[in-house]
Amino acid sequence: MLLRLRLLLSVRGSIFSAAASFQRTQHSLFSSTSSAMAATEESLRKALSDKQSAVEAQGNAVRALKAAAAPKADIDAAVQALNALKLEKTDVERQLQSILSSDGGLSREAFRQAAVNTLERRLFYIPSFKIYRGVAGLYDYGPPGCAVKSNVLAFWRQHFVLEENMLEVDCPCVTPEVVLKASGHVDKFTDLMGIFVNFKDLYYYNGNKLPFAAAQIGQAFRNEISPRQGLLRVREFTLAEIEHFVDPDDKSHPKYKEVSELEFLMFPREEQMSGQSAKRIRLGEAVSKGIVNNETLGYFIGRVYLFLTRLGIDKDRLRFRQHLANEMAHYAADCWDAEIECSYGWIECVGIADRSAYDLRAHTDKSGVPLVAHEKFSEPKEVEKLVITPVKKELGLAFKGSQKNVVEALEAMKEKEALDMKAALESKGELEFEVCTLGKTVTITNKMVSIQKEKKKEHQRVFTPSVIEPSFGIGRIIYCLFEHSFYMRPSKAGDEQLNVFRFPAVVAPIKCTVFPLVQNKQYEDVAKYISKSLTTAGISNKIDITGTSIGKRYARTDELGVPFAITVDSASSVTIRERDSKDQVRVDAEKAASVVREVTEGHKTWQDVWSTFPHHSSASTEE
Amino acid sequence: MLLRLRLLLSVRGSIFSAAASFQRTQHSLFSSTSSAMAATEESLRKALSDKQSAVEAQGNAVRALKAAAAPKADIDAAVQALNALKLEKTDVERQLQSILSSDGGLSREAFRQAAVNTLERRLFYIPSFKIYRGVAGLYDYGPPGCAVKSNVLAFWRQHFVLEENMLEVDCPCVTPEVVLKASGHVDKFTDLMGIFVNFKDLYYYNGNKLPFAAAQIGQAFRNEISPRQGLLRVREFTLAEIEHFVDPDDKSHPKYKEVSELEFLMFPREEQMSGQSAKRIRLGEAVSKGIVNNETLGYFIGRVYLFLTRLGIDKDRLRFRQHLANEMAHYAADCWDAEIECSYGWIECVGIADRSAYDLRAHTDKSGVPLVAHEKFSEPKEVEKLVITPVKKELGLAFKGSQKNVVEALEAMKEKEALDMKAALESKGELEFEVCTLGKTVTITNKMVSIQKEKKKEHQRVFTPSVIEPSFGIGRIIYCLFEHSFYMRPSKAGDEQLNVFRFPAVVAPIKCTVFPLVQNKQYEDVAKYISKSLTTAGISNKIDITGTSIGKRYARTDELGVPFAITVDSASSVTIRERDSKDQVRVDAEKAASVVREVTEGHKTWQDVWSTFPHHSSASTEE
Repeated sequence: MLLRLRLLLSVRGSIFSAAASFQRTQHSLFSSTSSAMAATEESLRKALSDKQSAVEAQGNAVRALKAAAAPKADIDAAVQALNALKLEKTDVERQLQSILSSDGGLSREAFRQAAVNTLERRLFYIPSFKIYRGVAGLYDYGPPGCAVKSNVLAFWRQHFVLEENMLEVDCPCVTPEVVLKASGHVDKFTDLMGIFVNFKDLYYYNGNKLPFAAAQIGQAFRNEISPRQGLLRVREFTLAEIEHFVDPDDKSHPKYKEVSELEFLMFPREEQMSGQSAKRIRLGEAVSKGIVNNETLGYFIGRVYLFLTRLGIDKDRLRFRQHLANEMAHYAADCWDAEIECSYGWIECVGIADRSAYDLRAHTDKSGVPLVAHEKFSEPKEVEKLVITPVKKELGLAFKGSQKNVVEALEAMKEKEALDMKAALESKGELEFEVCTLGKTVTITNKMVSIQKEKKKEHQRVFTPSVIEPSFGIGRIIYCLFEHSFYMRPSKAGDEQLNVFRFPAVVAPIKCTVFPLVQNKQYEDVAKYISKSLTTAGISNKIDITGTSIGKRYARTDELGVPFAITVDSASSVTIRERDSKDQVRVDAEKAASVVREVTEGHKTWQDVWSTFPHHSSASTEE
Repeated sequence: MLLRLRLLLSVRGSIFSAAASFQRTQHSLFSSTSSAMAATEESLRKALSDKQSAVEAQGNAVRALKAAAAPKADIDAAVQALNALKLEKTDVERQLQSILSSDGGLSREAFRQAAVNTLERRLFYIPSFKIYRGVAGLYDYGPPGCAVKSNVLAFWRQHFVLEENMLEVDCPCVTPEVVLKASGHVDKFTDLMGIFVNFKDLYYYNGNKLPFAAAQIGQAFRNEISPRQGLLRVREFTLAEIEHFVDPDDKSHPKYKEVSELEFLMFPREEQMSGQSAKRIRLGEAVSKGIVNNETLGYFIGRVYLFLTRLGIDKDRLRFRQHLANEMAHYAADCWDAEIECSYGWIECVGIADRSAYDLRAHTDKSGVPLVAHEKFSEPKEVEKLVITPVKKELGLAFKGSQKNVVEALEAMKEKEALDMKAALESKGELEFEVCTLGKTVTITNKMVSIQKEKKKEHQRVFTPSVIEPSFGIGRIIYCLFEHSFYMRPSKAGDEQLNVFRFPAVVAPIKCTVFPLVQNKQYEDVAKYISKSLTTAGISNKIDITGTSIGKRYARTDELGVPFAITVDSASSVTIRERDSKDQVRVDAEKAASVVREVTEGHKTWQDVWSTFPHHSSASTEE
């Protein structure tokens, strides 16, 4: 029961909810003028997708007839039908283009349409349960999308967990009610981190030292009422979170200098309020001027910038926007969102918040387990402490049954209040004191309480650490990465537009394809040898021994964003082609796998390869 | 609503439920005699864990006092308290040992106790929501456990997805009701694969060719009533599944020869029924004798064997047990479980089932989308087909409103039934025919139906592929791996037992630790340089610059299963120590990271390193 009813409340993405409503505001500007157009667009898209499927099915039928050596008349009829379907498809494309394109160029919507068509057709993602007509807001990642996602997560682990020596934990999605109560999920929808409850263990694991960071990758759920915008608004998503625990009195960071010279688009609170736009600021300057609250927060902003741009996010369409005072929780010291611009506008993909001591304090209160850190002094310190000692006998005589309430109220006084009382008692001998739990004021005399400053030796300082929390919406980052990586270029004959994803090798779903130029046992054996060497080295690759023209095979591989293609056109040497430049070099068959490995793993650049090996003219192989 | 109520029903682990009841039967043999003992054991374990915490806390206090140069009397008192606590702990250990140990050696339970103590103390895993007193059946993986889990999953991807060119997909945990209905989860608790619904897309992605395999790693949930046995019986677990789609008429496998010479423990149905035990069988023999149903199933059994033993599972405590006829679903052709023996008995960790065409047929029926494959003939084939043509006019006259039911029943006849009807109608002119949907028998005359064999040319064969499904319970594999990797050895002084996990490098949570022998800036700089080189190469490592004795630092690192430790004992050269042999070699500081990298990534063995570099006597560094 407990598990069943509460599960969907365990959403750890309040940041996202907030961001979503912010986007809604932005987008409502467009919605009234474009809703009729959206309906037409929707039906044209559906028609285009249907035509595309029909063209593909008919193409298959033609090939089957040819392969089966069917009568010429049958084949001719099928080819004619195929051409008719292609014409119909082109027509729908034109209609769609005309309602979307405003300035004659490729409009934002047409661009998205082309990217999304390619993504869905090549199974980067698929609406979940498609054969049951799909479920809005739930997507499956198909093979290339799934590979991109695991590459993004592997790079996240390398960039954050490994390089920063973070403690990664792995917690269940299922959260019992009491934890949600403590986190405020039951009473009010706030953020939770399934890590805070483990603080004590992790602090011990880290040798009781601060700072340290814990990291977690997990699934989060949201009961999204009307999911839309593809991968951006979904009911279930992967969240990668870091909780960096730091001394509130010392938020410096030892590696801060490694990022302080970075310069990128920042959008501070003040610029937003005064109607200015984001501007390029050097991170070190933003920290030293106090625009960014502290070094550690600044350090993580810099690391997130490096993470996103190394994945392939365009630095000119990435900005760090500071939360306005009213967007931030009252306890937060500062908060910045990494926002990425895509065809839907600026999308919040990473939140980087200094949440102060709020979460640890809340869990301390509810669980009764003190989630605190200790700083041992190198030598004991003498501190002056205010000690309030109620004289219970006198209080009992005066207040009888209400004695306990008065004692508690006296002990709960803040330092200022107690000092005021001490002064009043010393000068007047008595004063009026409000006891909230009794709902009235009572008279306290100087016999009833002693208030003294005492000197004490302390060996350590006990405090609740502050938490800096970078939190990554992995699906959103991946969708923006898809858009930033996508482009179209004309085929060699110039008669069609070909789709390309310019993924860096680190995220490309397949790193290399291997093609025998023609169907021939000797070439196939070389291709299989190279493919096997790549696999053994852990380089994902795909061998394509179909008789399709090499130009078409390159086009297929470009659509999947495969950075390198090896073509076997002799028994002793092969060509390696780079996706974006289409440049080719000639390499010994024996060496091909290790060259691809080096350039894929980042030990060499394509430029290094280009300057090392003889160039190969594409004319002979590419159509 | 739909999402909320059904979520916990989307359990994809029927295999596990079946296995669990099987284990229950085995274990009930012990339960009556040992339940009282279990209660004592439980309380002693609790007491031991409390004492352990107390000893650690007091140890910390002593160190703090020493660091703070507290008065000698204070320190002495604290040390005395520490010694008293240690004695109490030893006493509890002895009590526990005496109730557990039967043969004087380390009993099964004592062994488990020692392993689990180490696992929990070093945060391999933690009961979830521990500060809220934990939730039975839910565990968090702490830092080393989380690293082991991600290494196991990365190796699974390399061994299966990459090496077999599988199509990996990533689907949500959340499943809508209609899908569960189709899979039988709503009406009856059966297996689901959250991949089947994507068959059509994946078949297309694979160029409409068989065989191909899809793979998926996901979370599954189970409303376990009384979770126990630590990581073995949990409410939420990670399942890694493969669906290999194959032509039912050709279950050969191109890479079968790569595994057919493997020999390992198998436990065929017949041996189980006749009370024999598992025996070593060559896989090729099991397939050729028909003990294993087909080559593809045999191939996956072999690949699973390699996967588990390369992870570190002891081959003598691993067996493949065939399902008995009554354990298998009626549609399954054959099913084998990889069972691993641990202190809880034989635990089913991987199921490898030939599920025939069941799942694709069920989803075809419910969704109306044909999930079928096509085999194109190289030339059209002439086939004889039985054509049943009900004569609707005659049937309408005879049966009026019931006509439709009779027509459907006639069309649904199997070939044998139709041929019998044809013979009866030709000889007698009529026969009695049962129409199930009418609940009665009707008289069919030879005017009402025509049954003819007709010759037809077919260009392709359309069929539902069979599915071979290996399905991995990742948490169970990890728990068994923990037990198989754990051992204890005496400290050098012989006064205590030290814990070691002998993880192979591929799964070790941290591959290497780096220690400066003494606290010294020069040594620290060398250590930091080596650590940074390892990190850049993607080798997880931990630097320990505390002043603790090197022997203690080795012991800490052995408890985490770290295979290699680099000790900086000069500015120019360092030692590299191997965990299990404790052997050390001396290597140039410059080369240390690359040596560790080569041996960690499997390019070299420790034996290679040992025969290349000068040996270093441990006497000088290890205590």
